[in-house]
Amino acid sequence: QPPGLPLASCRSFTNKKIQVELDESSGVAMMKFKSPPVNSLSLEFLTEFSISLEKLENNRACRGVIITSAVPKIFSSGLDITEMCGKSVEHYTEFWRAVQEMWLRLYGSNMVTVAAVNGSSPAGGCLVALSCDYRIMAENPKFSIGLNEAQLGIVAPFWFKDTFVNVVGHRTAERSLQLGSLHPAPEAHKLGLVDELVPEEKLMEKAAAVMAQWLALPDHARQLTKTMMRKAVLDRLVAHREEDIKNFITFVSKESIQKSLRMYMEMLKKRK
Amino acid sequence: QPPGLPLASCRSFTNKKIQVELDESSGVAMMKFKSPPVNSLSLEFLTEFSISLEKLENNRACRGVIITSAVPKIFSSGLDITEMCGKSVEHYTEFWRAVQEMWLRLYGSNMVTVAAVNGSSPAGGCLVALSCDYRIMAENPKFSIGLNEAQLGIVAPFWFKDTFVNVVGHRTAERSLQLGSLHPAPEAHKLGLVDELVPEEKLMEKAAAVMAQWLALPDHARQLTKTMMRKAVLDRLVAHREEDIKNFITFVSKESIQKSLRMYMEMLKKRK
Amino acid sequence: QPPGLPLASCRSFTNKKIQVELDESSGVAMMKFKSPPVNSLSLEFLTEFSISLEKLENNRACRGVIITSAVPKIFSSGLDITEMCGKSVEHYTEFWRAVQEMWLRLYGSNMVTVAAVNGSSPAGGCLVALSCDYRIMAENPKFSIGLNEAQLGIVAPFWFKDTFVNVVGHRTAERSLQLGSLHPAPEAHKLGLVDELVPEEKLMEKAAAVMAQWLALPDHARQLTKTMMRKAVLDRLVAHREEDIKNFITFVSKESIQKSLRMYMEMLKKRK
Repeated sequence: QPPGLPLASCRSFTNKKIQVELDESSGVAMMKFKSPPVNSLSLEFLTEFSISLEKLENNRACRGVIITSAVPKIFSSGLDITEMCGKSVEHYTEFWRAVQEMWLRLYGSNMVTVAAVNGSSPAGGCLVALSCDYRIMAENPKFSIGLNEAQLGIVAPFWFKDTFVNVVGHRTAERSLQLGSLHPAPEAHKLGLVDELVPEEKLMEKAAAVMAQWLALPDHARQLTKTMMRKAVLDRLVAHREEDIKNFITFVSKESIQKSLRMYMEMLKKRK
Repeated sequence: QPPGLPLASCRSFTNKKIQVELDESSGVAMMKFKSPPVNSLSLEFLTEFSISLEKLENNRACRGVIITSAVPKIFSSGLDITEMCGKSVEHYTEFWRAVQEMWLRLYGSNMVTVAAVNGSSPAGGCLVALSCDYRIMAENPKFSIGLNEAQLGIVAPFWFKDTFVNVVGHRTAERSLQLGSLHPAPEAHKLGLVDELVPEEKLMEKAAAVMAQWLALPDHARQLTKTMMRKAVLDRLVAHREEDIKNFITFVSKESIQKSLRMYMEMLKKRK
Repeated sequence: QPPGLPLASCRSFTNKKIQVELDESSGVAMMKFKSPPVNSLSLEFLTEFSISLEKLENNRACRGVIITSAVPKIFSSGLDITEMCGKSVEHYTEFWRAVQEMWLRLYGSNMVTVAAVNGSSPAGGCLVALSCDYRIMAENPKFSIGLNEAQLGIVAPFWFKDTFVNVVGHRTAERSLQLGSLHPAPEAHKLGLVDELVPEEKLMEKAAAVMAQWLALPDHARQLTKTMMRKAVLDRLVAHREEDIKNFITFVSKESIQKSLRMYMEMLKKRK
C-alpha cells in the first residue's frame, strides 16, 4: 500500500447488489444495499449478502459493519416474492436456505453490526435491522418498519419471531405480529423496535459515532457476551433447520398461498 | 332468516350467567358476564363460559368475541371462594379442571378476543382479561385489576404467572405477584397490564373499533401467529394438568388455607 | 429480655466486614457493608455475607433484610480482583464457589430483600442489588450501577446475565452487557435497573417504608410466589455449578486475562 494516498486504507468490493467498503484504519465496513427498485431479498441478493458478511468476518482488519441502503426511501422491502411464486421445490429449498444462512451470519456475527435504516423496512427488511446490534432510523414518519407478514396472509417463521421478542419483548411482539403492523419511525422508536431516531442527513454520522462507541470495547469480551445473549435463539434454528425448510415448502406450495402472493405482486406492479 | 328485519343477523344464546349475542354480519360476538353480585367464577359460571367459547369457536360465522360485564363496577371478582371451602376432593378436582379448561379455551382461542374491562377485576378476573388479545379498561381510578392472590395468603398457579409475564414482562410480574397488587386503571395502563384506557361510556364503541382493526387481517395467518406466540405456555399446562390439579387439592385441603378462605368470606359478607 | 429498655429487641452481630443489626420487633435486619475502601467482594467478605444471610434466614424473628453500605459513595465495587490474580487453582475454586453461594442465598432468599444503593455499584456490586426484591438508589447522578465486566475485557457469567434479564428484559440487558455500561442513577432508573430514586438523606427512611409494605403480605404466599418467579434461573446455576467453576478457572488462568486484571489493579492503585 503506497503511503500518502488518503484513501489507501479503503478497500471496496465490487458486487452486483451490495456495495461494500472497508475502512481498514477504523476497522469499519460500510455495506450499502443497491438493488433497485426496493432492495428485495432475492436469492442472488441473499447469497451476495452472506458472502460479503463472511468475507468481512474473516478479515481481521474488520471489526464492525454499518448496513444501510443506497436506494432512496427504502431500506429493504424484504423477501423477494418472485422467488416464492411458481418455482420448483428445489428452488424453494435453495431460497429458504439462503434466507436462513443470511440470518445465522448476521444475528450471530462477531462484528459490531449497526443498521442505519434510511427508508421503509417491512418483513425481511425489518429482520435485517432487528438482527443488528443497534438500530438508528431516519426520523421521517413516512418510513415504516415491522414484521407485517400477517397482512399478506403469511406467518413470520419462529426465528423471525424469536429475534423480534428479544428486541421488543413478548407482548409488543404478539400484538405487532398478529396485526402485521408497519410502525412509522416515531412509533417504532417508542416500542423499542429501533434504538434511536435522527434526521436523515445525520444518519451516517450518528451510525459512525455509535459504531465508535461499541468498538471502544475489547472485541473478545464483547463477542462472548453477544454470543451468550443470542445463542439460545440461534441454536433453535440450527436444530430445526431442515424442518423449517420443509415447513416453508409445504406452506408456499399451497394454492391459496400462491394465489395471495400473485395478487400481492399484481398490486405492487400496479402501484409503480 | 326473513329479510327486512334489522336484527336478523343477531343470534342470542340464553344462558344463566353469561349473555352471548352473535352478530353474524360482522362475525363479532358479545359476551356479557351477568352473575351478580360480582361475576365470581363458580363451577357453573366456568362451565357455561367454556361451553359458550366452544360454541362460538365452532361457529364459522363467528370470528371475534368482546368480553365484558353486565354487572356495574365489576368485571369479575375471580374464582368463587365458596367452591374452595369445605368441599370434597372430587369437587375440588372438578372445579380446578373447569378453571384450567376455561383458560385453555380462552388463551388458545382462534377467535380475536377483546376484553372490555368495565369494572374491577382481581385474581381470576384479571386472568380472563390477560388471556384476551387486547385489553381496554374504563379509565375510572376506582376500578382496579391485578393478580392479588398473595394478599389472600394464596399463590397464583404457574400458568396465571406465565400469562402475566407474557403481558407485562418478568420484573413487573415478579413485583406485582409478590405484593398481590391491585392496580388502579391508570397504573395498570402504565404497566402494560391493559392496553388502553377510555371513558366508560366509550368502552364498547372502542372495543368494536379495536375488534374491526384485528378482523381486518386474514384469519388464518393471524391464528397461526397467535398460536406461535402462546403455544409454549399453553403446552406447559397441558403437560402438567393432573399435577396442577393435585397441587391445588393439596393446597386447598390445608386447614390453614381453609381458615384464611373462611375469614376472607366472612369479611366479604360483612362488607355487603 | 428485660422490659423497659427501648433497644432491647435489637440484636447486633459483630462481624469484620458486614455489620448486621436485627430489630426483632419489626423483624427487619439491617446489613451494612463496612469493608473500606470500596466494599469489594473478597473471599472473606463473601463468606461473611453468606453466613450472615444464613443466620438471618434461620432466625424466625427475621422476615426482611435491608442491604446498604457504611462506606461513603460506594455500595460495593464488585468482586475483589486480588482474589483472581496470581492465585492457585484451589484458591480460584474456593473463591468462585463463594461467589455462587452468596448469589444462591441472596437471589433465593425467603426473606424480603431491599437494596438501599447509597453509592456506585459496578459488576458484582450490581449483582447484589439485582438479586434483591427491590432496589432504591440515591438520586445522585455521580453514582452509577451496571454489569460493566465487558469494559475490563471479561464476561459476566450466565447467571449474572439471567438475573439482569429478569430485571430489565432481554434487549436492555444485551445492549448494556455488550457495552459494559455503568448507568448513572437517573438512567438506571429509566431502564428499570433500580425501582426508585430518592434523595440520599431519605434513602433509609424509604427503604424502611418499602420493607413495611412488602412485610404486610403473609410470608408463606409471598415466599412461594418468589420461588415460582426465580426457580428456573436458580436451578440453572445449581445444575451447572461445577461446570461454571471450571469455566471461571480456565478463563482466569489465561495469561491475557491475568495481564488485563493486573493492569486494571495498577490503574485503581494510581487513582487513589
